[in-house]
Amino acid sequence: MKKNAFYAQSGGVTSVINATAASVILESKKYKSKIGKVYAGKNGILGALKEELIDTSKESISAIHSLKSTPGGAFGSCRFKLKSFEENKKEYIRLVEVFKAHNIGYFFYNGGNDSADTAYKVSQISKELGYPINCIAIPKTVDNDLALTDCCPGFGSAAKYIATSTMEASLDVASMSETSTKVFILEVMGRHAGWMAASSALARTDKKDAPHIILLPEINFNQKKFLNKVKEVVQHNGYCVIVASEGVKNSKGQFLAESNTKDAFGHSQLGGVAPYLAGLISKKLKLKNHWAVSDYLQRSARHIASKTDLHHAEAVGIHAVKYAVKGMNGVMPIIVRLKNKKYSWKIMPASLSKIANVEKKLPNSYITKDGFNVTAKAIKYLQPLIQGEAYPKFKNGIPHTQRLKLVEVKKKLPNWKI
Amino acid sequence: MKKNAFYAQSGGVTSVINATAASVILESKKYKSKIGKVYAGKNGILGALKEELIDTSKESISAIHSLKSTPGGAFGSCRFKLKSFEENKKEYIRLVEVFKAHNIGYFFYNGGNDSADTAYKVSQISKELGYPINCIAIPKTVDNDLALTDCCPGFGSAAKYIATSTMEASLDVASMSETSTKVFILEVMGRHAGWMAASSALARTDKKDAPHIILLPEINFNQKKFLNKVKEVVQHNGYCVIVASEGVKNSKGQFLAESNTKDAFGHSQLGGVAPYLAGLISKKLKLKNHWAVSDYLQRSARHIASKTDLHHAEAVGIHAVKYAVKGMNGVMPIIVRLKNKKYSWKIMPASLSKIANVEKKLPNSYITKDGFNVTAKAIKYLQPLIQGEAYPKFKNGIPHTQRLKLVEVKKKLPNWKI
Repeated sequence: MKKNAFYAQSGGVTSVINATAASVILESKKYKSKIGKVYAGKNGILGALKEELIDTSKESISAIHSLKSTPGGAFGSCRFKLKSFEENKKEYIRLVEVFKAHNIGYFFYNGGNDSADTAYKVSQISKELGYPINCIAIPKTVDNDLALTDCCPGFGSAAKYIATSTMEASLDVASMSETSTKVFILEVMGRHAGWMAASSALARTDKKDAPHIILLPEINFNQKKFLNKVKEVVQHNGYCVIVASEGVKNSKGQFLAESNTKDAFGHSQLGGVAPYLAGLISKKLKLKNHWAVSDYLQRSARHIASKTDLHHAEAVGIHAVKYAVKGMNGVMPIIVRLKNKKYSWKIMPASLSKIANVEKKLPNSYITKDGFNVTAKAIKYLQPLIQGEAYPKFKNGIPHTQRLKLVEVKKKLPNWKI
Repeated sequence: MKKNAFYAQSGGVTSVINATAASVILESKKYKSKIGKVYAGKNGILGALKEELIDTSKESISAIHSLKSTPGGAFGSCRFKLKSFEENKKEYIRLVEVFKAHNIGYFFYNGGNDSADTAYKVSQISKELGYPINCIAIPKTVDNDLALTDCCPGFGSAAKYIATSTMEASLDVASMSETSTKVFILEVMGRHAGWMAASSALARTDKKDAPHIILLPEINFNQKKFLNKVKEVVQHNGYCVIVASEGVKNSKGQFLAESNTKDAFGHSQLGGVAPYLAGLISKKLKLKNHWAVSDYLQRSARHIASKTDLHHAEAVGIHAVKYAVKGMNGVMPIIVRLKNKKYSWKIMPASLSKIANVEKKLPNSYITKDGFNVTAKAIKYLQPLIQGEAYPKFKNGIPHTQRLKLVEVKKKLPNWKI
């Protein structure tokens, strides 16, 4: 029986999540006997709850293809976690009402840990509420912290951005260091796992190259050891490049960025591990420094996306549809690295129960003993993920992005308040 | 008579200053009867004073060509300003000694305002100390604040980076705004002139597009007006993207970033207009926000250089050599925009006396009345400068840069202490 599909984006977006969206929409068109329309949820799961469904069939095929080179989340994302059945059953009943009203039989949820949890809960609707649904979570996160999958779509492109930026900025610092800046700090994302900070190591083509210090959330910050290391690097190398994860914590487990800095109003200041470290280096070592915080730039830099990452993002979208029409439920297409000499991979289904809410941190074997660097094993893992370029088209000097029409389906149900 | 040439890089570097270096070196090879070797100063003018001269003839032609895609300053730059003849005559006498010892008759100095001043002083050596020198300053600065020239090599690429990043990040914020981030702030360089902040306006393909607020150093910051504007944009648009120049000042002329924030030690904190504004927005408007500081990334992002800018950088290098062999002294090759419908330009010589130490700010006609945006006239000026892509070669997932040998010429003189 032909059913419509629901697709939504959830959590922090990436530069290639729309490539997954495009793949889901285009692949669905191949199963005309099973899949009718693909409705995209406006702002993630909220779109399902509020019955705000975007009819993707109203978009031109070229507009759907252009999603492959558009960063951000084209249909809107959200930070919203469904409560459990016991806590908020009426949300699930509402979902089933919306699904029924629009003949939705496939549910694709594109996100990270929290989103896998939401998808897992939705997958249980079949059993709990007797409404048949094929629910597939699709991986996406620059944090690269999902369990089971070898890597997460979105991460490779962020990693390529970070490695490239670290390399480029280090050439800048190197040329200024004789009479000016001695230390450069780049702050990258990663609140709990250091994958992004670790990827800066790919900037090196020689052992002596930047980054000279990598600060990971997995390693407690030791101020004395850190300052000694900075001093030592500047003495030997003339300058020091530091890549710091936003999630670096002190020995009490507090985020550095929040632990010690008050603003003019006496309030704890928002984030900024880079300015924190810069202040420390100025005060204690009297070394001129510069700092950058890449924030959203690193996860939206579609102009320097990794081709490998883009392929992953497309493949998980395609396989999500394949799994759904095969009748699977409560699974996620994951990326499996094959044991070949040349990097190769395939997509396999994995159970959401083993993925939801699990966070994969950098393993110890990826971190050097002094805690300031990553090992050859980490490089071996990371390197393939940033290979290949996938430039967007440019128009008038900036990447060209085609706007979608975003036509909403007529509502059939009463309004719903979140 | 055949003389050697001295070339040096000065001040903050750019993603295309090495393209100028390559052009000077390659163009010089065309005048074998007039120009012998090209010696590059190690760390700018310091290389001349300390007799640290890099023999560029020891590099392969392919290595010289690869400079065109390598950011930073390959020979080292410096922040060092020669004093006047009256104040420090012995520095000039030393320069003449080094020039004599190495038969240097051409002096190329690649930099901004301060560097034009240094070059201007060196150009007077002929008159003041009777040593014949052809001194040519070559423009370079991401700040785009040099007088007479239509634009400065280095700026167009930084502008392209800023416009692209603003566009990309704005798609990210737009997709998160329903349940998460409402305001995004990007801090860009420009201590005294707002050219870089202004270039973020090139991110727009529609009037409603980001950036919604541009903060320029030319306009004093008015907190109340600013907060009202942010609130208004969020109300109408759902989110607000702000691009702020690092040089934004309050009504007392103090840098915002330094005016109001103390660190945990009670010291004024280093820079950071973005975290300052973020704190303000959190405190006064209670709107969730994110911020990024692009710092060195924006001026070293060779991976997204403007092809037009790259052509400018090459052309000023080539013309500097042409002017020198024609016997010119105390001039700079400047970029002149032609009055054609299609963007076109030529290079002309201009006198250093009119360029040294002059700072070109954004004209009033480029700034909207409310002070939060730039006019159509500004866009018309800026747009051509970011046109075209000039991707570097990639190797192992990052831009490939070839290392130079940097062989120093044997010293002939006693050491010199700065």
